[in-house]
Amino acid sequence: MRLIIFCFTGLLYILLTGCATTEVEKDTPLQLSELQDTALKSELAWEILESLTTEVGARMPGTAKDAEAVAWMQSKFKQLGFDKVWLEPVTFPNWVRGKERLEMLSPFTHVLPVTALGGSPSTQGEIRAEVQEFKTLKDLQAVAAGSLDGKIAYISYRMQRQPDGSGYGPARNARSLGPFVAAEKGAVALVIRSIGTDDTRFPHTGSISGSQSTQPVPAVAISNPDADLLSLTLARGKPVELLLDIASGYQGNYTSYNVIAEITGTRAPHEVVIVGGHLDSWDMGTGANDDASGIAITTAAARLVADQQRPQRSIWVVAFANEEQGLYGAKAFAKAHAHELDRFVLGNEADFGAGRAYSLRVNVRSEALPAIAELARQLAPLGIELDLTRKASGSADIGRLRAVGVPVVDVGQDGSKYFDWHHTDNDTLDKIDPESLAQNVAARATIIDFAANSRIIFGPIAVSK
Amino acid sequence: MRLIIFCFTGLLYILLTGCATTEVEKDTPLQLSELQDTALKSELAWEILESLTTEVGARMPGTAKDAEAVAWMQSKFKQLGFDKVWLEPVTFPNWVRGKERLEMLSPFTHVLPVTALGGSPSTQGEIRAEVQEFKTLKDLQAVAAGSLDGKIAYISYRMQRQPDGSGYGPARNARSLGPFVAAEKGAVALVIRSIGTDDTRFPHTGSISGSQSTQPVPAVAISNPDADLLSLTLARGKPVELLLDIASGYQGNYTSYNVIAEITGTRAPHEVVIVGGHLDSWDMGTGANDDASGIAITTAAARLVADQQRPQRSIWVVAFANEEQGLYGAKAFAKAHAHELDRFVLGNEADFGAGRAYSLRVNVRSEALPAIAELARQLAPLGIELDLTRKASGSADIGRLRAVGVPVVDVGQDGSKYFDWHHTDNDTLDKIDPESLAQNVAARATIIDFAANSRIIFGPIAVSK
Repeated sequence: MRLIIFCFTGLLYILLTGCATTEVEKDTPLQLSELQDTALKSELAWEILESLTTEVGARMPGTAKDAEAVAWMQSKFKQLGFDKVWLEPVTFPNWVRGKERLEMLSPFTHVLPVTALGGSPSTQGEIRAEVQEFKTLKDLQAVAAGSLDGKIAYISYRMQRQPDGSGYGPARNARSLGPFVAAEKGAVALVIRSIGTDDTRFPHTGSISGSQSTQPVPAVAISNPDADLLSLTLARGKPVELLLDIASGYQGNYTSYNVIAEITGTRAPHEVVIVGGHLDSWDMGTGANDDASGIAITTAAARLVADQQRPQRSIWVVAFANEEQGLYGAKAFAKAHAHELDRFVLGNEADFGAGRAYSLRVNVRSEALPAIAELARQLAPLGIELDLTRKASGSADIGRLRAVGVPVVDVGQDGSKYFDWHHTDNDTLDKIDPESLAQNVAARATIIDFAANSRIIFGPIAVSK
Repeated sequence: MRLIIFCFTGLLYILLTGCATTEVEKDTPLQLSELQDTALKSELAWEILESLTTEVGARMPGTAKDAEAVAWMQSKFKQLGFDKVWLEPVTFPNWVRGKERLEMLSPFTHVLPVTALGGSPSTQGEIRAEVQEFKTLKDLQAVAAGSLDGKIAYISYRMQRQPDGSGYGPARNARSLGPFVAAEKGAVALVIRSIGTDDTRFPHTGSISGSQSTQPVPAVAISNPDADLLSLTLARGKPVELLLDIASGYQGNYTSYNVIAEITGTRAPHEVVIVGGHLDSWDMGTGANDDASGIAITTAAARLVADQQRPQRSIWVVAFANEEQGLYGAKAFAKAHAHELDRFVLGNEADFGAGRAYSLRVNVRSEALPAIAELARQLAPLGIELDLTRKASGSADIGRLRAVGVPVVDVGQDGSKYFDWHHTDNDTLDKIDPESLAQNVAARATIIDFAANSRIIFGPIAVSK
């Protein structure tokens, strides 16, 4: 069904825009606009990124660093001269990481670097249990309920590297759903091979699903090299005993804030082009890719657009709270603005690091497709091509608005290395290429400028759930 | 002076071997011997490497893992059918790693992954002090004695990546000598940027020099990304305060063992071709490159040579104890065998991971150069070229024998990535390429076979100190 819709959309696109596109290719081949040229030369995004990672660093929801990040963001927006800066509260259950210890006790002894998965309960002291390997979540799902009584389940599936990050989808369910499936099978804990493409000994954290009705078992990730070690040990055919001791768990609620900045429009201030990323990170690394980059890209893009000339429509940059543990900021924002969703004329999020932008995906009403063709023409000099094979999702946070009818565009970025660093101690500033960061700013500035200085009606789009 | 000697050696080489080489190139272009062919197909080295890293793992001198590794090696040699296997005691001061904690307290707060340098004394509790950056050890050496009173010195020099690992030399003095220089300047501790070429958030450990007469300050390394963070913070021009708390130090003596295996020669059993690597590793990673690879390469090579036919001369494989903290195994071996150094007809060590072998360097008496030319001819099909621009050192352990006159050859290996993993948690089995591991075995087997099945007198060479 979806395929048919896309075919139709594609056809419509060709019918509506074919001539314009042809004309463009002839007249202005890869001519950067002044705004793009400025953006490519601007160091503003780098400065924002360097500031957040150096001055705040890791900023896990509910920690002292959460409040520090909110204060930093508020101050940064003000310092950059946005017209309005305000906070909107976001309350969520406070998951706290405690001590973490994983050892192989037999047949060999190893201390294995480990990270509890976000939302994992405590082991309530040491668990010593035999481990049983499953190649995939599906294999774990296939065994009888109760059949793992007293054992530790281990899912050894390895995420595949793909430029668009599409290896993440098939891998992540081991993390999000595995702890519930393991509980159902009678396991006392779950160990997963990290959802990551690297060969470092860093385990990747990340949340287990918050939407299940059953209780998960304590769940942890080990790095790819340690997963190899565990699998090689299990391959010897003797019982393998692990010791697991993690003290994480929920401790009351915490209130953080979405931090929002506005450039007020001239002609139609009530109409808002909304962009953003998430301000929180995990407690490992400095969250440079995830998602200081998104904060830096969208903030710099909005600022550069407004520096050129005050836009006709307003621009909001939203630094969402607690994306990592369940999109709490996005949900609170969608709820707080549910009465005025029609204000948001177009949304775009940056939450995939700073890899080079190469595609534009859209999710707009069909009447707006000719405008999208024009936008694509403007993005072409940056090496960005319109991709109608997939609809834009709005990504994690803006995706909550997309789900309730707000039109969105996605910028596809090269994510070949993104999952090497994602949710690990290794997500640090040096992983960001300043040139591709600036190219992303140029892309977002183009989109914001295009939408904020026009009367185009991009939505609403169909509500998806 | 050294240059002149080499020029002369090179000339001698050309005079003595020019014809033979020309003939070879015509007659047998890149023809693998049966032994080389067998070695390239053999999985023996991989099996040894996998066994050591999986079944023992990290094996720091003086820990329970030291004894485990000795037992493993003894058992492995026996299992592989070496004629004699014996232990020789190696006693050394037992450096114990304790808790390690480094935090930035102001102007920003960060927890920085840290490792104490081998041999570092304890901080005796928490040190809180302002940090002062020096770009190089030389810069630190240049300030007046006592001028860093109460401060933490920080050396931010970054090691350069080179295929032959030659960036290590200029960088390592910050680690080996820095703690003594910092003490002289009045500093309370030393922080160095890790001696490593990677961009991971793993600090690299390694020993400070044991040969100084003064007391070092407590000394630690931080990763490259964290060194960037610290330097970026210092670049803001405000005082930067660190908290350092490490509990390492020396605790009595420990006796480990060099594990030695012999293939007894037929014609001249008293004459010994000696090869080996070191059995110990740091307590991070599983010491796959440093130096399980060397153990695996030399053990497999000796075994494959003997599998072909019992050699005329004996072959010893030595798994040296405690190389990492001061060549204790090598020194004990050289001392124990000081009365019979003339037995060792040729030495070769493997202690640079498993990167592809590409050169042969030699340190033999000049009369043996024609024989070396023939050896080089035999190695050529493996892509290994004779390099007369530098003399062989014998590497760390066999180098102690070279220093007292034992002739040696070195196999130059591609070390482009070696210092990405060296002395970190990231030195694990997955970093080893099985093909280049096997090519190294083929190289060593060629050398051992050549020396053990001949009457060539390679030494003695000049005693160097």
